[in-house]
Amino acid sequence: MVQIPRGTRDFVPEEMQKRRYLQQRMEATFRGYGYGEIQTPTFETLELFTAKSGASIIDELYNFKDKGGRELALRPELTAPVIRCYIERLQMAPKPLKLFYFGNCFRYDRPQKGRYREFWQAGCELIGTDTPEAHAELVALAYTILKNIGLQNIVLNIGNLHVISAMFEKLRITDAVKKDLLTFIDKSQYEDLNSALRSNDISQQDTEAFLEILQTPDLDKIMNYVHGHERAHTELTRLRGVMDLLKTSFGIPDPRVKIGIVRGLDYYKGLVFEIEAPVLGAEKQLCGGGDYELVSLFGGTQVPQAGFAIGFDRALLALETEQFTFPQPSLDVFIVPVTETTIPMALSVASQLRAQGLTVDLDLLRRGIGKSLKYAAAQHARFAVIIGPKEQEEGKVTLRNMIDGSQSSCAVADLTAAVFT
Amino acid sequence: MVQIPRGTRDFVPEEMQKRRYLQQRMEATFRGYGYGEIQTPTFETLELFTAKSGASIIDELYNFKDKGGRELALRPELTAPVIRCYIERLQMAPKPLKLFYFGNCFRYDRPQKGRYREFWQAGCELIGTDTPEAHAELVALAYTILKNIGLQNIVLNIGNLHVISAMFEKLRITDAVKKDLLTFIDKSQYEDLNSALRSNDISQQDTEAFLEILQTPDLDKIMNYVHGHERAHTELTRLRGVMDLLKTSFGIPDPRVKIGIVRGLDYYKGLVFEIEAPVLGAEKQLCGGGDYELVSLFGGTQVPQAGFAIGFDRALLALETEQFTFPQPSLDVFIVPVTETTIPMALSVASQLRAQGLTVDLDLLRRGIGKSLKYAAAQHARFAVIIGPKEQEEGKVTLRNMIDGSQSSCAVADLTAAVFT
Repeated sequence: MVQIPRGTRDFVPEEMQKRRYLQQRMEATFRGYGYGEIQTPTFETLELFTAKSGASIIDELYNFKDKGGRELALRPELTAPVIRCYIERLQMAPKPLKLFYFGNCFRYDRPQKGRYREFWQAGCELIGTDTPEAHAELVALAYTILKNIGLQNIVLNIGNLHVISAMFEKLRITDAVKKDLLTFIDKSQYEDLNSALRSNDISQQDTEAFLEILQTPDLDKIMNYVHGHERAHTELTRLRGVMDLLKTSFGIPDPRVKIGIVRGLDYYKGLVFEIEAPVLGAEKQLCGGGDYELVSLFGGTQVPQAGFAIGFDRALLALETEQFTFPQPSLDVFIVPVTETTIPMALSVASQLRAQGLTVDLDLLRRGIGKSLKYAAAQHARFAVIIGPKEQEEGKVTLRNMIDGSQSSCAVADLTAAVFT
Repeated sequence: MVQIPRGTRDFVPEEMQKRRYLQQRMEATFRGYGYGEIQTPTFETLELFTAKSGASIIDELYNFKDKGGRELALRPELTAPVIRCYIERLQMAPKPLKLFYFGNCFRYDRPQKGRYREFWQAGCELIGTDTPEAHAELVALAYTILKNIGLQNIVLNIGNLHVISAMFEKLRITDAVKKDLLTFIDKSQYEDLNSALRSNDISQQDTEAFLEILQTPDLDKIMNYVHGHERAHTELTRLRGVMDLLKTSFGIPDPRVKIGIVRGLDYYKGLVFEIEAPVLGAEKQLCGGGDYELVSLFGGTQVPQAGFAIGFDRALLALETEQFTFPQPSLDVFIVPVTETTIPMALSVASQLRAQGLTVDLDLLRRGIGKSLKYAAAQHARFAVIIGPKEQEEGKVTLRNMIDGSQSSCAVADLTAAVFT
């Protein structure tokens, strides 16, 4: 017996019901913000991902040669493919371009709770503008999507990579050391960071100040810390503007500055942000994004770019953990032909009701009334329509309300109206 | 510059708009028939597909070893994965099970018009019943989906594999020869079939009769040809019943019997059917399905199974060839802040309108009114909302109807109502 591949999942109808609900809510919000959907192939040339993330990414990829000897890889994320598509087909389109995607990604990783080898991401890319209002709208979109799907408790943190650079300059930390430190910062491992700074001859006082600035939400304190660094000052002033727009124009109650956001990726610059669901504990990050530069790296004409990706599976897990009530699947009508001779009429009634947009099922196993009504109840049918030979002769059916158990005789012509009310 | 892999496609927003429209129409019809959605992984263990279709399928697959040495393959179709999932998780569920899917599949094939290396299929499996009404409903579902998406001209052909077997028996054709003949029948290559029969010592008269029966829609003629063969007789009687239900209960005007449908696959038995769009010429087949047996082959407990798959890309191509008018994407409102100082209000108004479910975009490039209105028109915006400093002070905006060009002053509080009417 062949089994499902390790680290992957099947989704049966009750699971798909939840997933489609979530997907539709997310897509509706993207569209509400003027974004249009884009879709790229499931696999790409391997080089696309190594160009973006370096050769070390290969260890985490499903990569393979096709029968023509091409080096391919199942996509681990969707930003690189979307930017490739932009360069091939959309560079001439009117700016700004607002593109969103919903797609599966693949990572060759040890499967564990909340981490799968095939997983889904919803995300977007905004190409052609980097005004503060554009960045504010992008961050607000990510936040609004997660609120609109029904999450109660999320935390939005916003940082800026130029400020971290200024902080490193201030302490005269070399690029070689920086790399290790960034890993600790990315993972919020502040004790390890403390030790690493101290062992690099940074004084206790400077180390403490550095750690505080990484974690404080106080923009004035951060401003003060990088005082005299022109680029950092400009970026922080901009960040303050974005924060104000998020609060006043978008009504987001509590966006927080957090300079210690670095994102794991080399191609980000300037604005970065993350949204967390504290209810998920260690795996709390739902969304990450920011301002980045890939178009020119891939050979296109330089243009501002920003975007974010939401972990779809984690967002679903967060909703479930918050005990969100998903809409129940339901059937409008279940039809029971009492005898074999009424089967043609049962199919005909089903066909008529379906043409009106109703969800209709019927007994296909010749089970009899009792068993059929039980099955109908298990399918959450709102109504049962029972058709016996005598009723067939009269062009009538018995309409049973499955919620209160009441029954009445109903002409076929009046059935749609009776079910819709 | 890295390019898109050969044989695959990107879909930009105007293409995705059409695809999502089509997908939603198809899904709505599946749900209307009481089907629930199922989703399986993009790759499976290679053995799943060789168990179903034999080792020769490997030539047409994207197969590869993962980093743990597992032999995997990108799915070439979805029936085998769904049946695997059924055996692993759904054997105990109440019958019948009505499962539909919409997913991408992969074939390592020479790319050509209408044939891609990554393509999409919509389909379903009906597990646990094989009554004539169940089969009639299944065939009607396939037909209704293609009509509901808007196709004008489709042809439904229905056959039965037991009847072909009886025809081969009648001519005493051996299994070895049969295989070649079936290939000709599958491809409707009747001249080649003629030669092959004649070279196997079948008389001219018998050959002509055989060829006629494969193509005639006349059920009585077919009945007569296989007279005395009990199984064929039973199956044809059943087929007549299914045809009657399709015509009278489901209102399908012209289902046609065609015994020369064999489907390329070994695991079909009994009922088979195909739906074609003649407008597509040689690539006209949109849908194929029937009664099959995979559960026991994969180690599950024997149970009736039937299903079909629709080629999504071809269905879209058929619609486009028939000049179907797809719904136009449109934007409800485009907002233009006249000066920098009105940007916060513009974002705030956008946010309020979006919360009402409207699709709203705004100028993120500080372009000025003229250029912004041009951009809004290109986005098919229904309304533009223009916010200048004086209007901001008064809590008002200028509302411009982009279709007739009329303008009026409007309080922000009244904006939603004005746009909805």
